[in-house]
Amino acid sequence: MKKVSIGLLGMGTVGSGVAAILRNNSLDINTRAAAEITIKKALVRDIGKKRPDLENILLTDQPDEILNDPEIEIVVEVMGGIDQSRDYILRALKNGKHVVTANKDLLALHGPELFATAQEYQKDLYFEASVAGGIPIISAIRQSLTANRITSILGIINGTTNYILTAMTGQGRKFEDVLAEAQELGYAEADPTSDVEGLDAARKLAILSSLAFNSRIGIKDVYVEGISRITPEDIVYADELGCVIKLLAIAKNLDDQSGIELRVHPALLPKSHPLANVAGVFNAVYVTGDAVGETMFYGKGAGSLPTGSAVVSDIIQVVRNTNFGANAMLVHDHYRNFPIKSSADFTTGFYIRIKVKDEPRVFANMALFFAEAGISFASIIQKPRSNHNAEIVLVTHPCKESQLRQALASLTSYSKLDKVYNVIRMETASSPNA
Amino acid sequence: MKKVSIGLLGMGTVGSGVAAILRNNSLDINTRAAAEITIKKALVRDIGKKRPDLENILLTDQPDEILNDPEIEIVVEVMGGIDQSRDYILRALKNGKHVVTANKDLLALHGPELFATAQEYQKDLYFEASVAGGIPIISAIRQSLTANRITSILGIINGTTNYILTAMTGQGRKFEDVLAEAQELGYAEADPTSDVEGLDAARKLAILSSLAFNSRIGIKDVYVEGISRITPEDIVYADELGCVIKLLAIAKNLDDQSGIELRVHPALLPKSHPLANVAGVFNAVYVTGDAVGETMFYGKGAGSLPTGSAVVSDIIQVVRNTNFGANAMLVHDHYRNFPIKSSADFTTGFYIRIKVKDEPRVFANMALFFAEAGISFASIIQKPRSNHNAEIVLVTHPCKESQLRQALASLTSYSKLDKVYNVIRMETASSPNA
Repeated sequence: MKKVSIGLLGMGTVGSGVAAILRNNSLDINTRAAAEITIKKALVRDIGKKRPDLENILLTDQPDEILNDPEIEIVVEVMGGIDQSRDYILRALKNGKHVVTANKDLLALHGPELFATAQEYQKDLYFEASVAGGIPIISAIRQSLTANRITSILGIINGTTNYILTAMTGQGRKFEDVLAEAQELGYAEADPTSDVEGLDAARKLAILSSLAFNSRIGIKDVYVEGISRITPEDIVYADELGCVIKLLAIAKNLDDQSGIELRVHPALLPKSHPLANVAGVFNAVYVTGDAVGETMFYGKGAGSLPTGSAVVSDIIQVVRNTNFGANAMLVHDHYRNFPIKSSADFTTGFYIRIKVKDEPRVFANMALFFAEAGISFASIIQKPRSNHNAEIVLVTHPCKESQLRQALASLTSYSKLDKVYNVIRMETASSPNA
Repeated sequence: MKKVSIGLLGMGTVGSGVAAILRNNSLDINTRAAAEITIKKALVRDIGKKRPDLENILLTDQPDEILNDPEIEIVVEVMGGIDQSRDYILRALKNGKHVVTANKDLLALHGPELFATAQEYQKDLYFEASVAGGIPIISAIRQSLTANRITSILGIINGTTNYILTAMTGQGRKFEDVLAEAQELGYAEADPTSDVEGLDAARKLAILSSLAFNSRIGIKDVYVEGISRITPEDIVYADELGCVIKLLAIAKNLDDQSGIELRVHPALLPKSHPLANVAGVFNAVYVTGDAVGETMFYGKGAGSLPTGSAVVSDIIQVVRNTNFGANAMLVHDHYRNFPIKSSADFTTGFYIRIKVKDEPRVFANMALFFAEAGISFASIIQKPRSNHNAEIVLVTHPCKESQLRQALASLTSYSKLDKVYNVIRMETASSPNA
């Protein structure tokens, strides 16, 4: 059997998962790849550290020992970061090696350069693990749904925020408390900004939507809001409205004309929607195509073995391609050049929670502000509170963000308004299960 | 741009979907395939029939005009049936053509012969549409999850029975009534046996499990029960037990030693399981791998455009392969030869609904029959009924079918037993959302 040597850049969570899978499932993997795949060398920071599971793998702290080793056919980048990993991947491709990477940050920033280089050198650059861990959503879009004009993607693609929102929903706890717990459990980083403010999800959405729409989409094209302002009270009201609150990554290309809509934000989602039941650290991507209709891809979005599953399956595919001289078959062709829709034109329902004086005419005046902006209500919840104040939740029918801004401007300058607690979008896309 | 001519065998529901997709999405499809794909000829029964949408396609009632046309590179079989389609596919492969088929019945019966022929002639034989319509579950198993030892597949892969059970659950209606309605709406065939008795799901399970376990699995290896004996009363009791009743197609290979477990039967499934919310004509396949963990693939399991999406995406992949001379890359290698587990050794919980005399000692005696077979109960529901009879639902902890048979033999010979209404398996696989 033909032998294929791979070099691993990084031996952290994902790298050790890759090594474990290649060790545990070698019979199946080698048969499926029609080649004996072995990790020849791994780049690590500390070659002195004991790694009892990795006795057969040479460790090095010199990247050139991997990038310049002519025996290594595939370089697997699982070290993360931007500048070094970009440099190593470019050098690997130019040295005639195929690359498998799990690095979403890098691809969202430097994808075009990396894919162009892979194309120029006719090498494979696979990246299934970069979005939604073990869920094969990249190959679904690049290969299995190619008959379709994809019209929308709705994703729960950040495990940290989904873990936090699930715990807040199930246990009525506050954002800050659950975040602290998630940090202790290792589900959230010491600096959680990238996750909780939606940036991580935005990077993944940029990757998915570039592939789905064959159009160049960068992080700056994505409108982003995080979940830090979601409170247990909002979650209880959402429940009363038949909804859950999820951090959704949304890309829509409804008619090829009005522009691609790209947004990451917390949203009220009907409980009947298949995404509403995606709990904890699970991820799911809900893709609608003009032919296939609604589809959903569900699984673990992170972790050593789930992410390793995506990396190793990519390695097997690269080896199969190599066996047939068919590398660089999947081209990242941005043959479309769709405009990006401005957030002012996003059309969604809104949940608005406010405190006002509990006096005659207040509600009538308030309703007028919305009517003047052309906004009507889908539902209203009012509960009396102490101190002559009333807490009111207004749910609008879909309207443009620019309309909402107009109504909110009138509202916030109204003397009887005490406070706007929160404004949260609603994703009312009807579920096929409804 | 290179031109690729395809020949269509059949122009029914799926064939017209394929033609519509190729017409509507030609820019995207041709760019993604790097070739101009056109349907040159279609085999139909009645060439006189008006088909206003298909003016550019030559129609023929002579299969040789497609099978012997040297210009045709890909033959798409969407005519169904067994003997003729087998003959045409074999001739197409031997004539140097790649084949895309949607024919599960044919593959479940003659897969080994067809794949061996494709391999011998180094041609592609793609079949994504044969299982679960638009859901890309075949390519998930053949390509995206190859790093894994797959341990189980749970599928809702028959739309007709899922439509019937969903309507029975939501509306409290009887099997016979909903079936008659489904037949009127075209969701069930005039002879519904293959769907409602589980045979269709068994054929699809045979295809999926052969791929997942790399082992030869035929229809005869699958234990099959249908849904015709499920009553509204069972569905109400299931609801009380926190479950729904679904027709599940289940394949398990837990330890590589005790044999592959293959079964299609109605089952009580906890409402918290992601499959429990799959409603109506939707399909979903829940796949667990040792590395990736739990995954689910959800979408429409039938219909002109969803099935056409799978067929056309396969065509695009075959064209890409052809561009790179990389056909026959995916081999159906049954390098494993796992034994098949006997149904007597299936270990599941059971729901048993009976009517007994409402007298002292009856319950104690009955409990003894189960205790003697080594079976204990997870829950019991008893409601008093008229005529000195009691209706009892017993839910067992997981036990072997052979144990259950022993208990039932004692029970049915017991003078105080009036009736066994139903025995239904439970699938208690814990959900990650639970």
